[in-house]
Amino acid sequence: MFYLVRMDVTLPDQMDDAEKQNLLAKEREYSQALQRDGRWRDLWRVVGEYANYSVFDVSGNDELHTLLSALPLYPFMRISVIPLATHPSKI
Amino acid sequence: MFYLVRMDVTLPDQMDDAEKQNLLAKEREYSQALQRDGRWRDLWRVVGEYANYSVFDVSGNDELHTLLSALPLYPFMRISVIPLATHPSKI
Amino acid sequence: MFYLVRMDVTLPDQMDDAEKQNLLAKEREYSQALQRDGRWRDLWRVVGEYANYSVFDVSGNDELHTLLSALPLYPFMRISVIPLATHPSKI
Amino acid sequence: MFYLVRMDVTLPDQMDDAEKQNLLAKEREYSQALQRDGRWRDLWRVVGEYANYSVFDVSGNDELHTLLSALPLYPFMRISVIPLATHPSKI
Amino acid sequence: MFYLVRMDVTLPDQMDDAEKQNLLAKEREYSQALQRDGRWRDLWRVVGEYANYSVFDVSGNDELHTLLSALPLYPFMRISVIPLATHPSKI
Amino acid sequence: MFYLVRMDVTLPDQMDDAEKQNLLAKEREYSQALQRDGRWRDLWRVVGEYANYSVFDVSGNDELHTLLSALPLYPFMRISVIPLATHPSKI
Amino acid sequence: MFYLVRMDVTLPDQMDDAEKQNLLAKEREYSQALQRDGRWRDLWRVVGEYANYSVFDVSGNDELHTLLSALPLYPFMRISVIPLATHPSKI
Amino acid sequence: MFYLVRMDVTLPDQMDDAEKQNLLAKEREYSQALQRDGRWRDLWRVVGEYANYSVFDVSGNDELHTLLSALPLYPFMRISVIPLATHPSKI
Amino acid sequence: MFYLVRMDVTLPDQMDDAEKQNLLAKEREYSQALQRDGRWRDLWRVVGEYANYSVFDVSGNDELHTLLSALPLYPFMRISVIPLATHPSKI
Amino acid sequence: MFYLVRMDVTLPDQMDDAEKQNLLAKEREYSQALQRDGRWRDLWRVVGEYANYSVFDVSGNDELHTLLSALPLYPFMRISVIPLATHPSKI
Repeated sequence: MFYLVRMDVTLPDQMDDAEKQNLLAKEREYSQALQRDGRWRDLWRVVGEYANYSVFDVSGNDELHTLLSALPLYPFMRISVIPLATHPSKI
Repeated sequence: MFYLVRMDVTLPDQMDDAEKQNLLAKEREYSQALQRDGRWRDLWRVVGEYANYSVFDVSGNDELHTLLSALPLYPFMRISVIPLATHPSKI
Repeated sequence: MFYLVRMDVTLPDQMDDAEKQNLLAKEREYSQALQRDGRWRDLWRVVGEYANYSVFDVSGNDELHTLLSALPLYPFMRISVIPLATHPSKI
Repeated sequence: MFYLVRMDVTLPDQMDDAEKQNLLAKEREYSQALQRDGRWRDLWRVVGEYANYSVFDVSGNDELHTLLSALPLYPFMRISVIPLATHPSKI
Repeated sequence: MFYLVRMDVTLPDQMDDAEKQNLLAKEREYSQALQRDGRWRDLWRVVGEYANYSVFDVSGNDELHTLLSALPLYPFMRISVIPLATHPSKI
Repeated sequence: MFYLVRMDVTLPDQMDDAEKQNLLAKEREYSQALQRDGRWRDLWRVVGEYANYSVFDVSGNDELHTLLSALPLYPFMRISVIPLATHPSKI
Repeated sequence: MFYLVRMDVTLPDQMDDAEKQNLLAKEREYSQALQRDGRWRDLWRVVGEYANYSVFDVSGNDELHTLLSALPLYPFMRISVIPLATHPSKI
Repeated sequence: MFYLVRMDVTLPDQMDDAEKQNLLAKEREYSQALQRDGRWRDLWRVVGEYANYSVFDVSGNDELHTLLSALPLYPFMRISVIPLATHPSKI
Repeated sequence: MFYLVRMDVTLPDQMDDAEKQNLLAKEREYSQALQRDGRWRDLWRVVGEYANYSVFDVSGNDELHTLLSALPLYPFMRISVIPLATHPSKI
Repeated sequence: MFYLVRMDVTLPDQMDDAEKQNLLAKEREYSQALQRDGRWRDLWRVVGEYANYSVFDVSGNDELHTLLSALPLYPFMRISVIPLATHPSKI
């Protein structure tokens, strides 16, 4: 079942660079594992913003929350979720 | 190049049923032709709303506007467009 | 799986009273059938507004959209849907 | 009498981990005591957000404010309250 | 128990003057009866707007909704309700 | 002449407890003096929020601003003011 | 005592031209009478909009509401009022 | 002096096609005359919307309002104006 | 040419009192010089807020930006500007 | 292909002056290089705000994001992007 998710990232000014690089590496690894197993179906950067739009294909609300709240950047994100249904004109 | 597009439809109360069915049939046909040639890459219904989120893969801003403004339902839609870029963590 | 749904109703001024009573009777019947089978788990009036907050317990996004879009009052409603997950402090 | 309550939590960046764990344990204990006595009737996590929707069943406005302002996380929450009435189609 | 209520009135352009005067007379009568019995405690016009702020003193959410939805102007009003609690500095 | 005033309080995280208690005591004293002389006519807590709705009865805009800007908590408040007029249905 | 007032005008599409010209002539006459007696102190057009910002100098909230609600265009206006106080740096 | 102007057009549903074509032809002619004399410096369609962003280079606020309010489509537009100043990094 | 300007001031919590008094004295002096030469035509306090509404009478956009960005409090202000035109009913 | 971009800058209070001057010099240099090669087609200051409106002429979404995210001030900016298409009345 599909969900459109927007994530906006705000890292604290005082975060030191090593911690930041470490966090971003973990985020990439986590994201790519989910992309490989098919649950993080799409991932795009919003032009000009430190934000992304993603499409998740998961079993339901609980699984989606579990995946999102385990994101390494989760404490620094504002996330909004839109549940998607099959469109009657979809081929 | 990718764009996230949200379309909200409001048909006038006074539109008669035949006109409405005709319009919706044309919309479906138009949408499916663009899905088949790959430019209307994704299409989902927003749960509970007469609205969709779509992803378009087109050559640029002008082509996208040409496609959207030729939608049979265009006069009855409110559309918003978000340009998308490649995400560095995308596999 | 749970969803919080808010529905705001706006009936057209020109709807005649018989049509309106008929529509509301169908809406009540439809709503009560879903309450009885357990999918429309909660239903409250928002104080002072022609609106309700509801909790649905359904199999997923597609079933929820199917139920909502079949509401007799659907063409006259603005609906917003919030997907809910299990809370870790829930007993 | 019923109220729909949304709580959004923002913990300060500089809160140390022991203090945080202590606070969250107290919050859970407080919440579960109210769930057991029936006043905190429902509790859900909003998917993707550090937020909950809750339904309270209390004697009125003053009791609700007393319960909410005694939440251990209260100083770190933004709360909004919607008073609910009986819906005429409720079975 | 107290509630702050804001009511914004929009009468349809096409309402004829006799109907309008009749409606406003009923509204005044209804409002004054509730003011006399103490439940409609305060009533002010918002400067420059066809709107009022009111304070109601009623037994709870259900009674408030019953009173508001019986207003003769109810079908032409947008209403918002804020539940009020005792303030600790109130003398 | 009447004004509806909403005050939202946000105390800085780093304010120490003695300073805070001192400030709140002064605020209460100041508020109660104005309630006693009749200018701070009503005072309610907004359920679930560190905020109040108040009604002031003062000689005009300048007196109201003088009273509000002398509040001990003024530097920590966001205030909005709505001027009120006599309602024609007021008894 | 001063107030900043913004008025946005929306005339109904179906108003016929003679009625419209008559209404606008009355509005101008009414406005100019108040400008001459000093109560409508300033009047500007908002660039690009059918709207104005005005400054009124009146005895208080009730007089302002009486003046505004007697505007010939009042039924077709959305009005917002901001009460103004003396600024300490004003010469 | 420069201004950024956004214009959103909403034509009434009931406008007949001949009237519409006539209006649009006049709008184009008016717009192109101003483009040719250099005052309507830039004109772009907002992708997916019946709206434009324009840059005007005029002598000041009054001239801009005169030009905008003479647009043939002016009665059907919502317009917002942002005054622009020279940027210190502009080459 | 006239502009309506709203300025909202937020001084940082950690600014020490001497610095603050110095800054405010400079602001007053700067403001009064512009009031005396006629360019800062009006200045009012917004009741209950650390904000003002002002009317400027300057040669155009560039002069206004130069004046505003030289305000001693400029780094601590959020400013919004509305360009004003002559109103046809202005006497 | 054209894009309208708005950038709002907020520098942290604690940034020291040398660092700030260095950053602004780099920003100017970067901006002017892009203006010279034609991709940063227009650049204006928003009157009264630490913000600009710009027009970019680039090959598409990815190039625009690459240019914007390399701005020296990028970590301190909120950016919004509006894709622009050819207007049919453009000469």
